[in-house]
Amino acid sequence: MTAAYQELERRFAHLAALDKAQEMLHWDRETIMPPGGAAARGEQLAALGLVVHEKMVDPGLSDLLDQAEERAIQDPWQAANLLLMRREWRHANALDADLVEASSRATSRAVESWLEARPNSDFSSFLPSFREVVRLTREIAQAKAEAFGVTPYDALLERFEPSITGDEIDVLFGRLAAVLPGLRDRILERQASQPQPRLPDGPFPADRQKALGERLMALAGFDTDRGRLDVSAHPFTSGAPGDIRITTRFDEADFTSSVMAVMHETGHGLYEQGLPGDWQFQPVGSAANMTVHESQSLLIEMQASRTPEFLSHVAPLMCDALGGEGEAWEAGNLHRLAIHVAAGFIRVDADEVHYPLHIMLRTRMERDLISGALDPSDVPEVWNAGMTELVGITPGDDGIGCLQDIHWASGLFGYFPTYSLGALAAAQLFRAVREQVPQMMTGLANGDFSLLLAWLRENVHGKGALLSTQELLRQATGAPLGTQAFEAHLEQRYLG
Amino acid sequence: MTAAYQELERRFAHLAALDKAQEMLHWDRETIMPPGGAAARGEQLAALGLVVHEKMVDPGLSDLLDQAEERAIQDPWQAANLLLMRREWRHANALDADLVEASSRATSRAVESWLEARPNSDFSSFLPSFREVVRLTREIAQAKAEAFGVTPYDALLERFEPSITGDEIDVLFGRLAAVLPGLRDRILERQASQPQPRLPDGPFPADRQKALGERLMALAGFDTDRGRLDVSAHPFTSGAPGDIRITTRFDEADFTSSVMAVMHETGHGLYEQGLPGDWQFQPVGSAANMTVHESQSLLIEMQASRTPEFLSHVAPLMCDALGGEGEAWEAGNLHRLAIHVAAGFIRVDADEVHYPLHIMLRTRMERDLISGALDPSDVPEVWNAGMTELVGITPGDDGIGCLQDIHWASGLFGYFPTYSLGALAAAQLFRAVREQVPQMMTGLANGDFSLLLAWLRENVHGKGALLSTQELLRQATGAPLGTQAFEAHLEQRYLG
Repeated sequence: MTAAYQELERRFAHLAALDKAQEMLHWDRETIMPPGGAAARGEQLAALGLVVHEKMVDPGLSDLLDQAEERAIQDPWQAANLLLMRREWRHANALDADLVEASSRATSRAVESWLEARPNSDFSSFLPSFREVVRLTREIAQAKAEAFGVTPYDALLERFEPSITGDEIDVLFGRLAAVLPGLRDRILERQASQPQPRLPDGPFPADRQKALGERLMALAGFDTDRGRLDVSAHPFTSGAPGDIRITTRFDEADFTSSVMAVMHETGHGLYEQGLPGDWQFQPVGSAANMTVHESQSLLIEMQASRTPEFLSHVAPLMCDALGGEGEAWEAGNLHRLAIHVAAGFIRVDADEVHYPLHIMLRTRMERDLISGALDPSDVPEVWNAGMTELVGITPGDDGIGCLQDIHWASGLFGYFPTYSLGALAAAQLFRAVREQVPQMMTGLANGDFSLLLAWLRENVHGKGALLSTQELLRQATGAPLGTQAFEAHLEQRYLG
Repeated sequence: MTAAYQELERRFAHLAALDKAQEMLHWDRETIMPPGGAAARGEQLAALGLVVHEKMVDPGLSDLLDQAEERAIQDPWQAANLLLMRREWRHANALDADLVEASSRATSRAVESWLEARPNSDFSSFLPSFREVVRLTREIAQAKAEAFGVTPYDALLERFEPSITGDEIDVLFGRLAAVLPGLRDRILERQASQPQPRLPDGPFPADRQKALGERLMALAGFDTDRGRLDVSAHPFTSGAPGDIRITTRFDEADFTSSVMAVMHETGHGLYEQGLPGDWQFQPVGSAANMTVHESQSLLIEMQASRTPEFLSHVAPLMCDALGGEGEAWEAGNLHRLAIHVAAGFIRVDADEVHYPLHIMLRTRMERDLISGALDPSDVPEVWNAGMTELVGITPGDDGIGCLQDIHWASGLFGYFPTYSLGALAAAQLFRAVREQVPQMMTGLANGDFSLLLAWLRENVHGKGALLSTQELLRQATGAPLGTQAFEAHLEQRYLG
């Protein structure tokens, strides 16, 4: 290990601490900050963003990277760490400080505006701040495209999934587009011939749903001494090593939505809690990328928690926690509810058959927003037309339409495809663990995630950012990312 | 306004945002952070502290201050702002970066250790991290003493109260030491001849106490769109403009303790919410100093909320909120409870007659810790002997003794005297507003703080850090800080 590399580890640990400070302030804003705090919080986030940027563009850092790269590094973790440092450096150095600061301020304002606009379905009040975010994101994409020699959209995508290009996504999504509509029709036909699920009668008070959520998190192996569950408008996971924060929202009429949101975020949380402790505060000790992150949430939620095995164990727990009684609480009914397929407006509530269709709409739209082919003011109209075309239903207002997601308001463009890449990876990983650890499903039937978690710790969580998505999947499942396991999963679950 | 001054405003706004980011992370640590987050939070706070320090010692900042000071500034706010910038610069430039970072890490560790040690009365587990904090604080005091040409303890005190020296405190505290013991004896004698107060029977669930606290905060004029109430081991107020966070703790056996803690912190919160909006993010737009801050909490808690007028209004509210019934809930009894004088171990629960005695003990001890005359390992013994001498009772364990306060663990030395300076200032200010706004007390009897708040906004809150403690008191009350109003207040309340 050279002195230059050692100094880089020190600097990147410092940068990671500043990044995590920002992440905590974001968390606070989305969960508990009073409305009056918006302006000051915007200043704090902008100031921190600027400091991180200053440190990333410091010529001394560039020199250290050059020096460290001169010598071959034997240790594969250190070698990967250095590559990731260079990658972060490239992203930061593609942008000038004014653009970074303007973007941070603009997204703070847009998120604040979105928080008010969404419940009122008021796109017009959101438009000015959204337009500014789009304008600045185009500038960012353009600058990075020039620096990296890729298309502007691919330059944004690279931040969230570095080993899969837009063209490769087209191939994967193209296959899904060819297969899903027919599959969906067959599933709906089959479903119509079977007993209809019944939603247990509410209301389900938020505090009891929260207690239930905490019980299920613990069952899955989430350590509440190193994390917590809170409430936000849009469920998410963030935090710092030893302090992983997941959020959900509660619908008092339908507890299944929050239960599955909690299991989803728990999947993210387990990943973060299982990252390699030896490398915490270093790039290589972080999550690999958003495809792998989403694969972990979807593996826990879609693959593991919606099985008859797991639901047979938790049905009595749910019934007890929410004070229910009657046939609607039987495991068979709760399973039918958990795998019920129906067109809907809300992405986070979508079943796994429709979910990729929601993602295809967003991916198409954000590509057009970045290229300039779509003007921000046309978003509601294009959204509604796309929903009609892809999902077959038209939102009655923007609150359940184009205002439902926080992503674009917070400047996240190029992120949406990773949800469906993650769904493919989740199916592929879950098939692998079922094959490699046959007793794992018996564990789930007893509410015991330990075999599953041990396999994930070894094959995914404990790898940190050492491997690309493709290499991680090759090592864990024997193949790069494809649609086959996902298609087989849908066939087996819904038509088997 | 010169270009140099303008650039200074920009830089100090950036520094204020970074300071406030730290403050939010401190708040989070004391209220909701899971235990596993301690290490990462320590890194975040250290990183932020280091960044602020780097920016304060940047030679460019020193040049800007020199340039701005060359020209006379007409606007008194700008002139005061520049003086305060220079003062902050002096504090930062007296220390080198390694000492700042080491101190930040040491206090993070000591606070974490204190949070565990206090409930277990386990001073020995706290001692190693405490010893390190004392060692580093001595270094800090020594460095600042040399830079400012004052004693090491005065150099620490200056951070919290810049216009009153240790010698002046000796004069004020000397007068209190001469007067209080005799006054206390007369009060206890008088109290013994009167009906004894009765604590209403609990338990009082924490959530109902919290709802009551929020109602009382609102009554006093605290804006919950620009702040919130939470729970921590030790009540405190922090936050950022538009986002003022006060905390309390709940004793299910005694609601009066949390009610008065909430009113105390509400006083701090009203001050923060009333600071001049035109100067937010600038030094002159911040709170003046800790004496004035404590005067505001004690004015609301001790001077206004423990009056028969206010308690006659809130007695039925409290009874209703906590589901009480019977004679113990009558205003007369609640007033007797609120002004009951009795020796006790806990500073924050102390009555206003004994409170200065707790402060004299801490002031004496921290001066000796800083001078080296007191070794950290001797703190429990010296504490217990001092309590016996000054308050007349001896703590049975360190949890209710030397471990009760977070201050020393978090590196706050030189802070304690400001509590009693604040008590003197509160009495002096409250006497002034009673004289200048005679209808104010009628307002309190109707639960209406608006006249009091308007006077405080004009004479204290809206001044920000424009005036020193002494100048603020001269303008608002006609005299500098003295003990006379406080003595008269005690005579009137307890012996009148």
